Amino acid sequence: MQTTQSMLSVDNQHKKVFGPTKVPDRLLLGPGPSNSDPQVLNAISLNPVGHLDPFYIALMGEVQELLRYAWQTNNRLTLPMSGTGSAAMEATMANIIEPGDTVLVGIKGYFGNRLADMADRYRANVQTVEKEWGEAFTLEEIENALIKYRPSLFAIVHAETSTGVCQPMDGIGDLCRKYNCLLLLDTVTSLGGVPLFLDSWKVDLAYSCSQKGLSCPPGLGPFTMNERAEAKLAERKGKVPNWYLDVSLLNKYWGSDRVYHHTAPVNMNFGIREALRLLAEEGLQNSWDRHKNNAQELWSGLENLGLKMHVPIELRLPTLTTVSIPPDVDGKAFTLHLLNNFGVEIGGGLGSLAGKVWRIGLMGYNSRTENVEKVLSLFKSELPKFRN
Amino acid sequence: MQTTQSMLSVDNQHKKVFGPTKVPDRLLLGPGPSNSDPQVLNAISLNPVGHLDPFYIALMGEVQELLRYAWQTNNRLTLPMSGTGSAAMEATMANIIEPGDTVLVGIKGYFGNRLADMADRYRANVQTVEKEWGEAFTLEEIENALIKYRPSLFAIVHAETSTGVCQPMDGIGDLCRKYNCLLLLDTVTSLGGVPLFLDSWKVDLAYSCSQKGLSCPPGLGPFTMNERAEAKLAERKGKVPNWYLDVSLLNKYWGSDRVYHHTAPVNMNFGIREALRLLAEEGLQNSWDRHKNNAQELWSGLENLGLKMHVPIELRLPTLTTVSIPPDVDGKAFTLHLLNNFGVEIGGGLGSLAGKVWRIGLMGYNSRTENVEKVLSLFKSELPKFRN
Repeated sequence: MQTTQSMLSVDNQHKKVFGPTKVPDRLLLGPGPSNSDPQVLNAISLNPVGHLDPFYIALMGEVQELLRYAWQTNNRLTLPMSGTGSAAMEATMANIIEPGDTVLVGIKGYFGNRLADMADRYRANVQTVEKEWGEAFTLEEIENALIKYRPSLFAIVHAETSTGVCQPMDGIGDLCRKYNCLLLLDTVTSLGGVPLFLDSWKVDLAYSCSQKGLSCPPGLGPFTMNERAEAKLAERKGKVPNWYLDVSLLNKYWGSDRVYHHTAPVNMNFGIREALRLLAEEGLQNSWDRHKNNAQELWSGLENLGLKMHVPIELRLPTLTTVSIPPDVDGKAFTLHLLNNFGVEIGGGLGSLAGKVWRIGLMGYNSRTENVEKVLSLFKSELPKFRN
Repeated sequence: MQTTQSMLSVDNQHKKVFGPTKVPDRLLLGPGPSNSDPQVLNAISLNPVGHLDPFYIALMGEVQELLRYAWQTNNRLTLPMSGTGSAAMEATMANIIEPGDTVLVGIKGYFGNRLADMADRYRANVQTVEKEWGEAFTLEEIENALIKYRPSLFAIVHAETSTGVCQPMDGIGDLCRKYNCLLLLDTVTSLGGVPLFLDSWKVDLAYSCSQKGLSCPPGLGPFTMNERAEAKLAERKGKVPNWYLDVSLLNKYWGSDRVYHHTAPVNMNFGIREALRLLAEEGLQNSWDRHKNNAQELWSGLENLGLKMHVPIELRLPTLTTVSIPPDVDGKAFTLHLLNNFGVEIGGGLGSLAGKVWRIGLMGYNSRTENVEKVLSLFKSELPKFRN
């Protein structure tokens, strides 16, 4: 029987000498991440504690309660997944879909496509209903698709980060109940910045991220499901085909049992606790109003410079604005210029909007008058240099 | 067509008023998380940057290179998964297993069971070979199991966090090649603190965590796979049944294409970059020696107090020590006393060792003479109060 290791010696070919970690100062006015609140960054840098420490267990409860407030839900199963928003997105699919379930996805942008891709990996019968990137669905379109496909789950994006469209929610929940279907809502770019009433809207499952309206770095994915969704989970024939995101296991850790599942990302949870606390301190309605007011200032300022918004005003997101790139401008060269010379990040288009729009985010801590003024002054002084 | 939202107003039932986030000062000498290096905490608190920012892209390359050094591997596909160690564990399974593949898991503790559970969720034909918790496998036992089951993947834990055993690795890689099987190694409690030579050991896939030997908070899961494992991934008939952990997609972001996959947890990556940089600065061999020396001080000090280690010395992990709880002591009451009155966390047993051992970690930043002295002095002064 072997008991000692071979005598090997360390190979230094990958041992590189790097200086201490420093980061350039960026004003993040793209689709996210947005800048974090300094108080959140301070919370994240506190000493870690154990994931079963009584102090941490209490903090978990505070995070859950504040998430319920932010989402306007009473859902017991409300918690941050230990991954980014995409992990929380996948958690909704992984837990609810059983092989062969019909899942209907409303696609009106990049993230609708992602939902369809994920549902397919969980062996759903995936059906889609599509709109142009920049439009929203009507109730009639949704009802027709529900009648046609009779899905057990309808997934739709509230705030499409790729297009800047806010999907009107009135009546969608009622339709899903009428056709006996669960409603899954992507709130990645709306939580904290755009009115959200999960329970009143009869949303059964939702997810979000930490790095936009919550002013926290990326790394956590808020997740929630109501009793209707829990019932579907409880009826599963087999195990959830994803261990890390299995809500039946996570429930034992986040619920009263506190059974160890995985080692929680404790420092990120210090951060989201602080971020949600600051949101509650400001008040949801105040935060929503602030986002709306700053967005309106941005829109009118850009229009005064002769620019055109990609989305009609009644569907426009206050958190993320898509601006049509004038035909004589190299959009990518302009954003690189802003990043390299002014430290300001704004985003380009994704998917079918690549090269056609800029994406300007005013989210969470970054939704401030001085940031609106900064963007407008940069567009005014720098954009003319990029016109051919 | 609906274009306006219903007039709903904010419900304040979950709006709780909490004070700013504060954390008790803990010395984390349990199975993890361990305390983070203050320089790592400082790095984590820096302003976020965009996940496609040229600065961040360069930082990603530095993290990958330093991970290769820490693991002693040349694997191109070496990156931190955007979740905790368990996510990286699942990533190895999700990418490599196709339904019906025979997976052999060596179980000699809690985390071997977790590997088997995960493999089952990816529809493998799961076979196991087991040892008592506190023992390691012999080469003969492994070879017999490889002959019996002819698996396409053999998964084993290098450093079992539940038992404190370090599995000797000599010859295991050769056996796996002989029987045409991939070798998957859990290095969660060894990376940075225990000699690890992935390439020399012919390990095909491995994963780890950020919060132990690397002195970073929990939240990232280092992952690596070599060309043999990549070849198996490339031959898959269907998509990887896990979107978030799909290495074929992640490779496009971490590789030269830099195609957006998910929004990276940028601040956690600032932290792990700093943690790996500090490890390289100290030097791997120095770090391994430090862990070994401090562990030996702990062992002899505890033995001088009449305590017995659970694992024979030749198999004992330097990062995590399991100490047999004397039959007349309430182990849980003692650890609660240390936490509540001295702010020192040590761990209890998991699974079949629950109530039977304490787990004392001396990992990364915490592997220091003063911490050894602190533990010994607490055992000396406080343990007698808990003897019946």
